[in-house]
Amino acid sequence: MKIESVDLFYLSMPEVLDIGDGSQDALLVRVAAGGYVGWGECEASPLACIASFVTPMSHSACKPVSASVLGQSLNDVADIYRIGDLVRAQSQDVLQADHTLSGVDMALWDLLGQRLGEPAWKLLGYPRAYPKLPYASMLFGDTPQETLLKGRKARAAGYRAAKFGWGPIGLESAQADADQFVAAREGLGKDGILLIDIGTVWRADVEKAALRLPALQACRATWLEEPFVSGALTAYHSLSQRSGSVKLAGGEGSHNLYMAQHMIDYAGLGYIQIDAGRIGGLSVAKQVADYAHARGVTYVNHTFTSHLALSASLQPYAGLQEDTICEYPVELKSLAVDITENHLLPDSDGYLHAPDAPGLGMTVNPAKLRPYLKDVEIRIDGALLYRTPEL
Amino acid sequence: MKIESVDLFYLSMPEVLDIGDGSQDALLVRVAAGGYVGWGECEASPLACIASFVTPMSHSACKPVSASVLGQSLNDVADIYRIGDLVRAQSQDVLQADHTLSGVDMALWDLLGQRLGEPAWKLLGYPRAYPKLPYASMLFGDTPQETLLKGRKARAAGYRAAKFGWGPIGLESAQADADQFVAAREGLGKDGILLIDIGTVWRADVEKAALRLPALQACRATWLEEPFVSGALTAYHSLSQRSGSVKLAGGEGSHNLYMAQHMIDYAGLGYIQIDAGRIGGLSVAKQVADYAHARGVTYVNHTFTSHLALSASLQPYAGLQEDTICEYPVELKSLAVDITENHLLPDSDGYLHAPDAPGLGMTVNPAKLRPYLKDVEIRIDGALLYRTPEL
Repeated sequence: MKIESVDLFYLSMPEVLDIGDGSQDALLVRVAAGGYVGWGECEASPLACIASFVTPMSHSACKPVSASVLGQSLNDVADIYRIGDLVRAQSQDVLQADHTLSGVDMALWDLLGQRLGEPAWKLLGYPRAYPKLPYASMLFGDTPQETLLKGRKARAAGYRAAKFGWGPIGLESAQADADQFVAAREGLGKDGILLIDIGTVWRADVEKAALRLPALQACRATWLEEPFVSGALTAYHSLSQRSGSVKLAGGEGSHNLYMAQHMIDYAGLGYIQIDAGRIGGLSVAKQVADYAHARGVTYVNHTFTSHLALSASLQPYAGLQEDTICEYPVELKSLAVDITENHLLPDSDGYLHAPDAPGLGMTVNPAKLRPYLKDVEIRIDGALLYRTPEL
Repeated sequence: MKIESVDLFYLSMPEVLDIGDGSQDALLVRVAAGGYVGWGECEASPLACIASFVTPMSHSACKPVSASVLGQSLNDVADIYRIGDLVRAQSQDVLQADHTLSGVDMALWDLLGQRLGEPAWKLLGYPRAYPKLPYASMLFGDTPQETLLKGRKARAAGYRAAKFGWGPIGLESAQADADQFVAAREGLGKDGILLIDIGTVWRADVEKAALRLPALQACRATWLEEPFVSGALTAYHSLSQRSGSVKLAGGEGSHNLYMAQHMIDYAGLGYIQIDAGRIGGLSVAKQVADYAHARGVTYVNHTFTSHLALSASLQPYAGLQEDTICEYPVELKSLAVDITENHLLPDSDGYLHAPDAPGLGMTVNPAKLRPYLKDVEIRIDGALLYRTPEL
């Protein structure tokens, strides 16, 4: 097969709020080859990705992502890795390229899986997929009381694990944060797995983080996620020496294999969190999963958008039996819900399964998405460089 | 002062060739505040940067770069650092943002320098600027004979140091590369400082690099630059243990402080090369210079575009007396030459000086640039989001 077309669709809620909710817009990727269609999704700024896909060449290592994808052969798994390497070489100086490649790579696995009649996790090399315990991934309430109610709701819905993040956390006093932690624990119940996400607001300030450790330990948080930005290795490592029973989690900002490896090698993490929609797709995410597994660091998916992205995020570590928990967003905007016809739901034991179906196993319904579609037009010297295609 | 406007100009040669020459296009940044105008330049994909500047918000950590710059106060140096931090926080998930910020940050230093009547290097904290020995930065010839002639030309022009990079190097046999190294040394003469740049074509393949070490040592190369991509720390470190008299240089791909720190801490570099047009501008580049200096790693500018970018690249280490050499591109396309009215030329002793003039000390002549200007237009749902402004 040859890759005949790659179409990018910028979808958005009518109103995008200034909150840490990544499900308010999406960049959907559709790839066509040999009569098959594959779908992917970038966890990224849609317009910046579109520009990186169509931008004119600046020099030999600063080419549009499209230059390394359109017209390429796609017959086996090796072709997908080859295309990724080509994008990384030819678009090395287009910073946005890794995010754009991520959605394209997902769509390639989806498409090849359909052609070969195999789930992506099998093509990635896993003989079987193990169930994962989903944690309900939510924003903190604006008040502890609101957080308490959110925790209770998750527990009532049967979740044995929950993560609270963003919102007011980390921005006020250590006491205000402690009140939120206590509310989260109380809402979730004493046996639940409690995860706390700071959303990088302390940047690299170890003392701000250390001030919160007693409260995190007291409420028995399993992990403290992203106290610092991806790459602040020294800050992470220093905090990991003091965090005791609370393990550190991070890495979602990694946009290539090296960045994830550095987080694993030098940051003292207990959990490496990878967004397949940012790191270069399933191909790179699987390499991270292998690397982490060999070093005793637990791999966890990062996802906060559609179930297409959720399925993609599960594939790279579906076959790792010991890496048992997975992120499961429970506060999605309607756009993110509507991207797929089918949805991944916990089974009666509360476990989530990567689809045992060709490719990513998700059905995209274009008709349902048209109301969210943004019509993007880019012209240079009057010539049309990009126009949102027919969905 | 308040930042009143930030204008981005995509300039390009009529034809862009598929070679490793970054001077074929440019993204020029013009900032206006309080009656002053500052100029900067992104070393980046122009269209992707423009998109990242104007893209609609996706969520609270995925905002357009413009949201953190327009309307901000600009009265002192602290304001520039504050604006950079704001961009990094609010545009954390817009991957392209660091490249875009780089040109904006440059323009802010240029503007504030004019307002305060001080060169940027003085505002950055240096009491004086030391002369740098420029190395003639060139592409390898397609044949050893062509490289020999380029070397002779540089020597005849008075350069005591020269760098050859990209072109065919690293892509053919080790013997073919060795022939090129010998030709470069012969052309430059036996006393010249010879620098070799592989342009990352070996990605992370240590053995490919190791095969070339005997020839590099025999021709007395001072450094081997970018045998691998930025971030391939293990590969760099492993090679550094075997490279003997040939030191490793790298880091130009770093787009934030952390990435540069990792290269300094873990890659075994002798030289850290920073492009102020990629890493987040002068602000971050100066932080890298301080960090490298404290650890005995030599800082070198990376620049392959205009003399506006060249001046900007010198400022962050102008005051470091021991870091003596600087990149000086000698094969610029007319666009890159035309961006500034004045040019930085070596003095009679062959040394280059950061301008002792307000800001970056360079004069941009808009009229001369109009023939290179691309008219970019971006619309979403018919509404104009960006149109190339009046230059």
